[in-house]
Amino acid sequence: MSDPFFHPVSGFDLPRFAGVPTFMRLPHVPLEHERLSDVQIGLIGVPWDSGTTNRPGPRHGPRQLRDASTMMRAQHAVSGMRPFEAANCADLGDVGPNPADILDSMERITSFYNRVISAGILPLTAGGDHLTSLPVLRAVAKKDPVGMIHFDSHTDLFHSYFGGTMYTHGTPFRRAVEEGLLDPKRVVQIGLRGTMYDTEDRDFAAANGIRLILVEEFHARGVEDVMAEAREIVGQGDTYISYDIDFVDPTFAPGTGTPEVGGPNSYQALQVCRELEGVKIVGADMVEVSPPFDPSGGTAFLGVSIMYELLCVMAGQVARSD
Amino acid sequence: MSDPFFHPVSGFDLPRFAGVPTFMRLPHVPLEHERLSDVQIGLIGVPWDSGTTNRPGPRHGPRQLRDASTMMRAQHAVSGMRPFEAANCADLGDVGPNPADILDSMERITSFYNRVISAGILPLTAGGDHLTSLPVLRAVAKKDPVGMIHFDSHTDLFHSYFGGTMYTHGTPFRRAVEEGLLDPKRVVQIGLRGTMYDTEDRDFAAANGIRLILVEEFHARGVEDVMAEAREIVGQGDTYISYDIDFVDPTFAPGTGTPEVGGPNSYQALQVCRELEGVKIVGADMVEVSPPFDPSGGTAFLGVSIMYELLCVMAGQVARSD
Amino acid sequence: MSDPFFHPVSGFDLPRFAGVPTFMRLPHVPLEHERLSDVQIGLIGVPWDSGTTNRPGPRHGPRQLRDASTMMRAQHAVSGMRPFEAANCADLGDVGPNPADILDSMERITSFYNRVISAGILPLTAGGDHLTSLPVLRAVAKKDPVGMIHFDSHTDLFHSYFGGTMYTHGTPFRRAVEEGLLDPKRVVQIGLRGTMYDTEDRDFAAANGIRLILVEEFHARGVEDVMAEAREIVGQGDTYISYDIDFVDPTFAPGTGTPEVGGPNSYQALQVCRELEGVKIVGADMVEVSPPFDPSGGTAFLGVSIMYELLCVMAGQVARSD
Amino acid sequence: MSDPFFHPVSGFDLPRFAGVPTFMRLPHVPLEHERLSDVQIGLIGVPWDSGTTNRPGPRHGPRQLRDASTMMRAQHAVSGMRPFEAANCADLGDVGPNPADILDSMERITSFYNRVISAGILPLTAGGDHLTSLPVLRAVAKKDPVGMIHFDSHTDLFHSYFGGTMYTHGTPFRRAVEEGLLDPKRVVQIGLRGTMYDTEDRDFAAANGIRLILVEEFHARGVEDVMAEAREIVGQGDTYISYDIDFVDPTFAPGTGTPEVGGPNSYQALQVCRELEGVKIVGADMVEVSPPFDPSGGTAFLGVSIMYELLCVMAGQVARSD
Amino acid sequence: MSDPFFHPVSGFDLPRFAGVPTFMRLPHVPLEHERLSDVQIGLIGVPWDSGTTNRPGPRHGPRQLRDASTMMRAQHAVSGMRPFEAANCADLGDVGPNPADILDSMERITSFYNRVISAGILPLTAGGDHLTSLPVLRAVAKKDPVGMIHFDSHTDLFHSYFGGTMYTHGTPFRRAVEEGLLDPKRVVQIGLRGTMYDTEDRDFAAANGIRLILVEEFHARGVEDVMAEAREIVGQGDTYISYDIDFVDPTFAPGTGTPEVGGPNSYQALQVCRELEGVKIVGADMVEVSPPFDPSGGTAFLGVSIMYELLCVMAGQVARSD
Amino acid sequence: MSDPFFHPVSGFDLPRFAGVPTFMRLPHVPLEHERLSDVQIGLIGVPWDSGTTNRPGPRHGPRQLRDASTMMRAQHAVSGMRPFEAANCADLGDVGPNPADILDSMERITSFYNRVISAGILPLTAGGDHLTSLPVLRAVAKKDPVGMIHFDSHTDLFHSYFGGTMYTHGTPFRRAVEEGLLDPKRVVQIGLRGTMYDTEDRDFAAANGIRLILVEEFHARGVEDVMAEAREIVGQGDTYISYDIDFVDPTFAPGTGTPEVGGPNSYQALQVCRELEGVKIVGADMVEVSPPFDPSGGTAFLGVSIMYELLCVMAGQVARSD
Repeated sequence: MSDPFFHPVSGFDLPRFAGVPTFMRLPHVPLEHERLSDVQIGLIGVPWDSGTTNRPGPRHGPRQLRDASTMMRAQHAVSGMRPFEAANCADLGDVGPNPADILDSMERITSFYNRVISAGILPLTAGGDHLTSLPVLRAVAKKDPVGMIHFDSHTDLFHSYFGGTMYTHGTPFRRAVEEGLLDPKRVVQIGLRGTMYDTEDRDFAAANGIRLILVEEFHARGVEDVMAEAREIVGQGDTYISYDIDFVDPTFAPGTGTPEVGGPNSYQALQVCRELEGVKIVGADMVEVSPPFDPSGGTAFLGVSIMYELLCVMAGQVARSD
Repeated sequence: MSDPFFHPVSGFDLPRFAGVPTFMRLPHVPLEHERLSDVQIGLIGVPWDSGTTNRPGPRHGPRQLRDASTMMRAQHAVSGMRPFEAANCADLGDVGPNPADILDSMERITSFYNRVISAGILPLTAGGDHLTSLPVLRAVAKKDPVGMIHFDSHTDLFHSYFGGTMYTHGTPFRRAVEEGLLDPKRVVQIGLRGTMYDTEDRDFAAANGIRLILVEEFHARGVEDVMAEAREIVGQGDTYISYDIDFVDPTFAPGTGTPEVGGPNSYQALQVCRELEGVKIVGADMVEVSPPFDPSGGTAFLGVSIMYELLCVMAGQVARSD
Repeated sequence: MSDPFFHPVSGFDLPRFAGVPTFMRLPHVPLEHERLSDVQIGLIGVPWDSGTTNRPGPRHGPRQLRDASTMMRAQHAVSGMRPFEAANCADLGDVGPNPADILDSMERITSFYNRVISAGILPLTAGGDHLTSLPVLRAVAKKDPVGMIHFDSHTDLFHSYFGGTMYTHGTPFRRAVEEGLLDPKRVVQIGLRGTMYDTEDRDFAAANGIRLILVEEFHARGVEDVMAEAREIVGQGDTYISYDIDFVDPTFAPGTGTPEVGGPNSYQALQVCRELEGVKIVGADMVEVSPPFDPSGGTAFLGVSIMYELLCVMAGQVARSD
Repeated sequence: MSDPFFHPVSGFDLPRFAGVPTFMRLPHVPLEHERLSDVQIGLIGVPWDSGTTNRPGPRHGPRQLRDASTMMRAQHAVSGMRPFEAANCADLGDVGPNPADILDSMERITSFYNRVISAGILPLTAGGDHLTSLPVLRAVAKKDPVGMIHFDSHTDLFHSYFGGTMYTHGTPFRRAVEEGLLDPKRVVQIGLRGTMYDTEDRDFAAANGIRLILVEEFHARGVEDVMAEAREIVGQGDTYISYDIDFVDPTFAPGTGTPEVGGPNSYQALQVCRELEGVKIVGADMVEVSPPFDPSGGTAFLGVSIMYELLCVMAGQVARSD
Repeated sequence: MSDPFFHPVSGFDLPRFAGVPTFMRLPHVPLEHERLSDVQIGLIGVPWDSGTTNRPGPRHGPRQLRDASTMMRAQHAVSGMRPFEAANCADLGDVGPNPADILDSMERITSFYNRVISAGILPLTAGGDHLTSLPVLRAVAKKDPVGMIHFDSHTDLFHSYFGGTMYTHGTPFRRAVEEGLLDPKRVVQIGLRGTMYDTEDRDFAAANGIRLILVEEFHARGVEDVMAEAREIVGQGDTYISYDIDFVDPTFAPGTGTPEVGGPNSYQALQVCRELEGVKIVGADMVEVSPPFDPSGGTAFLGVSIMYELLCVMAGQVARSD
Repeated sequence: MSDPFFHPVSGFDLPRFAGVPTFMRLPHVPLEHERLSDVQIGLIGVPWDSGTTNRPGPRHGPRQLRDASTMMRAQHAVSGMRPFEAANCADLGDVGPNPADILDSMERITSFYNRVISAGILPLTAGGDHLTSLPVLRAVAKKDPVGMIHFDSHTDLFHSYFGGTMYTHGTPFRRAVEEGLLDPKRVVQIGLRGTMYDTEDRDFAAANGIRLILVEEFHARGVEDVMAEAREIVGQGDTYISYDIDFVDPTFAPGTGTPEVGGPNSYQALQVCRELEGVKIVGADMVEVSPPFDPSGGTAFLGVSIMYELLCVMAGQVARSD
């Protein structure tokens, strides 16, 4: 059982609307904190959206996710997992980005995550737009390429935008494959849909062995079958989980910049996480939550509910390895 | 056929946005009204949320539900039931609560319902938070414990909050069992989900024979199968229906204080009511509709659509017993 | 392949939030434009809601649909259709209505569409309330009655409102049958639900051979089965497609004036369009999108996503007939 | 002192969010009610906006104004007037309009007001768009032309719209002058501003002796000076007060269809009413409150605050004449 | 100059949307923190609204105020005061209330503030509804009655509500006078307006020597003149500042439960604080900020801007006394 | 009088909600259009906010400003100016930015404006964040430094952000002075307020002779006096007008990224423009309108109302020089 220092206060004791909002009411443990070395899972905010080609806003994601996260309680309703007891979890704070300089921001992010990884902490990231995953992967997959299970309505595999711009939220995984951070044969993208510019991204996937599962296939086969294949694709190796909130239908998650209708519902959004049991997770992210486009705040609440599901799987993994 | 005094004006004659908004455009019949004794089904507002431990707002529920209810028409689309002809229905107005005194408010509510029950009126309540059900049950189940079919994402079976506070919207049915208002062996709770504080509520249910149906089971078995079991559990005895709007997925019903993602959709929200045919209903409520958290008003519209479904079942029961 | 003049600029070149918003970034080709004769499919706005008996707003629909439509890209994700290459498409602008005179507005609309039809252009309309379909049909079905596949939660087959008013958004298809614009035996209405005034509309349908498919049947049989029957009903003859956004569940499409809960989800909303392949379409409309009731703009985005699906089917038909 | 039957319940006894919302919690006295003959001031809703040439919504005004009006208390903070004791006030309900027929609606309105006037009741109207004032004036000024103090950012004196349409919310006072309902020499319009189509309305005013006070003059001279002139213009004769909420700056009253920036603030909005003391009021209206364009509901609250000011002046007049 | 430990990070270094949001980005120093004894000014949240008789929501105030407060910078634009250098300021966190028990909550608040006062910390409170001020005053004025400058549209001097309920947000200062916490002759209330229940509160004020300044007087005399009188009334003795956000016109501060139109604008809202220079402040509060009624968040931003003004005056006082 | 080609359609003929929304319903004349050479005043959108250090959104400004601009009519209410007759005005479309590359975007903007200036067109820009003004000035002030009247709550004169980033919306005028685009002695900044990081910007202004007018001085002296000084400062030389919407109080203009409370109201927002008569304007901009932070759209409407005021002054200047 984890250290009580890392246990959140209960809503039975302090109402959930009270208190300074850290992720899931966990202690705030910045990188220079004396307890950093005891943290096993670190929740990290990356308030950054400079790679957004369409509607901005995810820079406000971490704060709203923290706010909504005070609704999370101690135990998973189905698995019974009590993540804050299974592992030492903490809010490591936000990476400070430079909103007016993409390359500088990427360096800041990678630098932050290098320290996290060095400290042996498993990172669970709250973005930020999807470009966030690239500098995170540069730290997480520093040594060897990793596999990836990627929930999204877009591949984010394009070469470039606007006449040659290489770093946008539509290109991170193209870069990650090129940089040897991802092993494309161990990458699966689930939930793809929406009108297409062209087939350049799909062609790249096909040429490199990335498995694409369109939402039509997802709806036809169901969560369990699709996820069984996903687990098989990534196998026993190190695997990164990247969860773009636009994987979910925009009615369930309107607060995002590039919605595509016809996606999974909120129940399926949780189910896919539960099917990650057994995958060797080396990091996970929840990206593209954009508060300005979400009048009721429901997207952030769904986002943290998904983060809680991911956290439970990760905490189980940590507990087993203790 | 019922008395024309009790027939709402049609939207064909008076546009639905016009007129003083009573529930479903029914006549406003306060307890002191001369026609009270002719009422068979009474729609009652309980604008009260002092038992709310998290986000308040249901005190504004009855007014917004009345507003939305002017969209309801004369006939059910599937069963063909014309509820306002099958039974004398009326808007009995609101119970006047004391927002700053929980015990005083509970007495006011029970007192109001005692008069309703004495007049032989079947009550259909628009809350209010879920603590509302307790003072209502004190009138409805005054003589003998009743059974209950309870739609909710929470059990509301906790012992106490904040170090010993016994009356909150998380405890009404614990109290109701303790007070002998509910027969726990004839209680079923459907749709349970969300992160958990601990298992204290579930342990109480298990120890007392309350049947809990988690949303996972609900999604797996489907409405018809689950509801057949529910009907079997309550049997032929007197039964109360308590419908917390947070039973429905928060995307369909964002206007509520303690949402839990992954719930039933709006079609299932109606279907479960249709499956109540044959249950001996002694009262029903729709609670936890919280307008401040619902920018578009859709939650109240769903809420009254559900109330209309309940009303049709109740009107059929009244008509058969006439 | 179509004329490059008719190709929209790509979001890869001009960000999607930039530029004067025409439908799908197509060229604006008013009726007096020199390239009108080259247009094959015309997207037309009818900003008009004077026939609305309840909550107004669809007069603002075309502008918000144009705004949202700049999110549409060049290719369909499943069929691979590239509609702007398959057919010459253009934004023909809006019909200028007279918001304070229904009959005058209907004449203006029919007059506009007569010119469109004369130019050999296949019209795809963005309404406007559902009365829009009547003056459009007066042009489209000028010579012979047409069949219709009609997605809606209401029949819109009533005789009159408010003591004899014949032209409202609840009566267009009653008038269309009476005027010989629709062949009732080749008309199917899908998704019907909601509380009913009475059975006058259903009686008219039954007497005239119009096939009504309630949402309960839709949910039970599924999209494919229902649409197979729909295609059979309309057969090989000329067919109009009328798509009221309130066909979709109001959680997915809150921006509409007369919502009815329990409808299809956004995925089904797209699927039904894909099943129109093979129908001989002589015109289509998307009506009742009402921006004032949609805080997040999601309804318009769903609306244009549906229009894109319709456009792909229509472009394929045009391409095959070239 | 007035009859207790007509006294609203206090917020000290029943919280202001509770109860069926009539105007200012007054008794609902429809025209056929037995107490009608005892009413001295009647608050009437006209939920109608078919004359709106731009953004619709005022049909929803009366209901939201009723809702907000439950915030009004028993006594004016400055004058000490207790209007519900000074005069028998009642909510006479709404005139049922025909949203799809302007002429029919105008007849319905005039007919309703004829009965109100015949019963000796002083009407205070909640519109509705500004065309509402015309059919009301047809009843109020049936015998002789009346004067008018008109608060607005527009003159509403245009001849016609859209090629000859005579009845819109931009034409009511042109018609009223033509029909001999208004004595133009006793008419003053205050607060005019906004970009202009042309000078046709101002030319008509000049030719007929209507005094126009632009907002620039209003800001320069101040409320007291301007209102002293207004009182002088209307003199001792019968005078109608027409208050378009767009008189107020749209930041204070966003919920309206044709806003014009640069107007008076909310304090001035009240002050002008207080300066009506001494005018012989034969009727008053508050029009163009459009809930769909007011996310926070503040416009309706300002609207009823203004109605309360008008009511206090009218109640004083009634009390003095008793 | 203050200890660097207490200096907030600059928006030049960390963007203002980043980081865990404490009040004004100050360090979070709970009561048990080792640096508590070095704190000179403590910013404290009281997320509590159980005393609200009308629209609830202020329990969510502290969190939204913290969020908005990250927009505050290091220096006052006019006075040049740099508050975080002039005094050691810290975020002391929230008092944990019991939302379902008013008396328990009041004890928790007083107990918290007793510890704050014992530590020699000057408290600046973010409420919470106005009942908050009472338990705070029980700690602040423990020894001797204090004076008060009170900005509000209401007196909050009523005896009781709902038939005898003594503790609501309409009664705190009646209780405070009765309990000897306030010296009524050194109390001034500024900005009063809105419709009145009766004159009971004003009678109490008159009988006890409390000076009431209605908004009419405020507008007529101006900020400087009114505040000079206020300073004279409180004199050189210990003085509490209580600032209800509904002092400001609701257009500038819609996010509050009991708005009254016609109030001061945002510039005057700041000016009155600047005129507190020279008053001996022993505590201050900003109450009744209610996020659920504020779609754009502007009320919280105004609220923290006012808190910053108060903080600058308090920091100057601390610096002078160092 | 101008060419009828350049006359917008009237709202009397086509309702203002209808039609493809160009700026003020002017013809869309892209740079390659055959009538470009006849344009005298060009309205240009720059949908770009990559320089935003805080809350993004102005990239959506031009589209919402175009939408709101269809409310503008033909004639100024006070001056009588009919701008579309006084000068040939046109919507030149948007500059296509690169949202993920600041330097590339600045080059695109300057390149676009070079062509505009070469064509002898007076540009009126709709931003975009305030960094927009820098690349515009590079074209407008290509030959000689210009003067500037700058309405804003911030100086935008900082050296750099985030450790050396030179191009943000807080630095454009520092760069413009350094690059010799502005003559600092002919620059006046009006409306400054808000908490300050430090005095670095004010020190730069003082050292270079830029005149700063704080909002306190503005409120004390009034519009006319302040603007007389402003005209004197810029004198008879070429002058640029830069209008940041955050000059206006955020209650009147909530849709902006860095609001500061206590600013001018909407009437003063217009008045300052009217006082520009006589200044030799070589270009003007309206920047920082951020739709995502404006639930009701009022900011854009105020923004275009200000643009209309600027346009009238500019059209008068063009007409006089014709």
